[in-house]
Amino acid sequence: MWGMIATWRMALEGVTKGCDLLKENGDAGDAIETAIKEVEDFPFYKSVGYGGLPNEEMEVELDAAYMDGTTFDLGAVAAVKDFANPISIARRLSKEKVNNLLVGEGAEKFAHKEGFERKNMLTDRAKIHYKNRVKEVQELELKPYSGHDTVGMVALDSNVHMTAATSTSGLFMKKKGRVGDSPISGSGFYVDSEIGGASATGLGEDLMKGCISYEIVRLMGEGMHPQEACETAVNKLDKELIRRRGKAGDLSLIAMNNKGEWGCATNIEGFSFVVATEKEAPTVYLVTRDENGKNHFEVASKEWMDNYMATRTAPLVEK
Amino acid sequence: MWGMIATWRMALEGVTKGCDLLKENGDAGDAIETAIKEVEDFPFYKSVGYGGLPNEEMEVELDAAYMDGTTFDLGAVAAVKDFANPISIARRLSKEKVNNLLVGEGAEKFAHKEGFERKNMLTDRAKIHYKNRVKEVQELELKPYSGHDTVGMVALDSNVHMTAATSTSGLFMKKKGRVGDSPISGSGFYVDSEIGGASATGLGEDLMKGCISYEIVRLMGEGMHPQEACETAVNKLDKELIRRRGKAGDLSLIAMNNKGEWGCATNIEGFSFVVATEKEAPTVYLVTRDENGKNHFEVASKEWMDNYMATRTAPLVEK
Repeated sequence: MWGMIATWRMALEGVTKGCDLLKENGDAGDAIETAIKEVEDFPFYKSVGYGGLPNEEMEVELDAAYMDGTTFDLGAVAAVKDFANPISIARRLSKEKVNNLLVGEGAEKFAHKEGFERKNMLTDRAKIHYKNRVKEVQELELKPYSGHDTVGMVALDSNVHMTAATSTSGLFMKKKGRVGDSPISGSGFYVDSEIGGASATGLGEDLMKGCISYEIVRLMGEGMHPQEACETAVNKLDKELIRRRGKAGDLSLIAMNNKGEWGCATNIEGFSFVVATEKEAPTVYLVTRDENGKNHFEVASKEWMDNYMATRTAPLVEK
Repeated sequence: MWGMIATWRMALEGVTKGCDLLKENGDAGDAIETAIKEVEDFPFYKSVGYGGLPNEEMEVELDAAYMDGTTFDLGAVAAVKDFANPISIARRLSKEKVNNLLVGEGAEKFAHKEGFERKNMLTDRAKIHYKNRVKEVQELELKPYSGHDTVGMVALDSNVHMTAATSTSGLFMKKKGRVGDSPISGSGFYVDSEIGGASATGLGEDLMKGCISYEIVRLMGEGMHPQEACETAVNKLDKELIRRRGKAGDLSLIAMNNKGEWGCATNIEGFSFVVATEKEAPTVYLVTRDENGKNHFEVASKEWMDNYMATRTAPLVEK
């Protein structure tokens, strides 16, 4: 069995490419890097890679991570500017003996020495989003922050090798140097080839409070189906955050075990994810959560899919 | 009941100061910040704060974190240069709604705006260590890396409020921008006032592979005594790393539950830690680990204590 699962509709094209490798007996590391690069390269996804929305200083600072579930090799970068594919830098770092998590200027120096090409990751479209947000915040006294649609993925290949990976530009209008859960092992991602993997999207600051990706893998290791593991962990953290803090930020998790079974749980409206396995072509699911904390999935309609891409690529005018 | 536990002998003076607050019904947040600052300020501890050893570019880059076990408020900085007390910046960040983990230049900007004073954290003694290491590496073909004696602490106050905190200059000769487990929630530290807290020191790159501080708190939540929780988690991660990677880096963990019971486990020789509670004056323990993975503690002798400080403060000459 092989398979992939990933957060958000935006992962569809990447997962499709990744699965083209997996179905030819490709490696889970190559598949997940290929898949994430596809999302990073697409300019209309405004929270990952090229076209990602900038921080409050109008700089695009990117985070990414890669984990090998067999060796536990980990690599991650945070607050990196002007490299096209943070996921590839993260995967490269996972092969180092130490210094596996690099941030800021140090990460950029490493990437430069390793031959990764510089690319200005701030698009004209992202600049318009930034300028509009500055005006909205002034005029409407809105909170400046919004948008944290990290792409997080888990891959399983036919040799039962599993990987997990993430990539994000983080919270729109974040402070310079802000890092969320995405490059943080156990919070943004975790994978063990002998069990399965999980990855997160949502408010990093709250996801980090529960080490939720680690917890989901642990629950799968105790025998839970990925769906039960995701719902158990998400509902517990959601409840704890509300009890202790009055509210919980967005928490959306996806998981797959090493048999290719998968699960997803969220505490928000409007979450979508992508699954593909040996038995199932790449499919976008939309999630609804009932009052009992159960998550229900329906395949995205053609109308929804058309509308999604039309919205993402619609002309954007400066206000 | 109140109490504190901390990694390494170097925490003794800080824990003593922190407990002076706790015994007067002080807050666990104030106690732990006071304690960590004491360690950061002491110039002869070469892996925390002032006098900390530099990265491969001879820059002192510091990491620190603070967590409140009641609200789960988290604050952390990584790869910060030239501020005296990273722990105070981390605690300040824990009070923000978002942007709780800041790295590099962004963290420095935040600290500057918040009025924290700049301080050149590179001492002459640290420069000699650096120069000697450069020569040793060239002449003896040593691995450049050594030293990762993070101070990690857990505090419990008489109102059953618990906190955890860490501070470190990280791996000596690390790459610029390298971040270990210390500012990473779940790996370097974790605390829940309804259960207890844990903190780590050792090879951050390996500690991160197991989310080990979170795991110890979780095991205590299942009813384990802190000692059993520490040994269970450390021995399991040590074994898994050896099985999957051929070897395990240094892993040393301390924990305290909300009744003031404590525990410690390590996979190395020569680990020491400090405990103080309502029932026990600040005490330095030395750890030995038997072949069954059981950890045995003995109170450090006066001779050991004298020798420790003499070694730390001995004149250092450039080779």
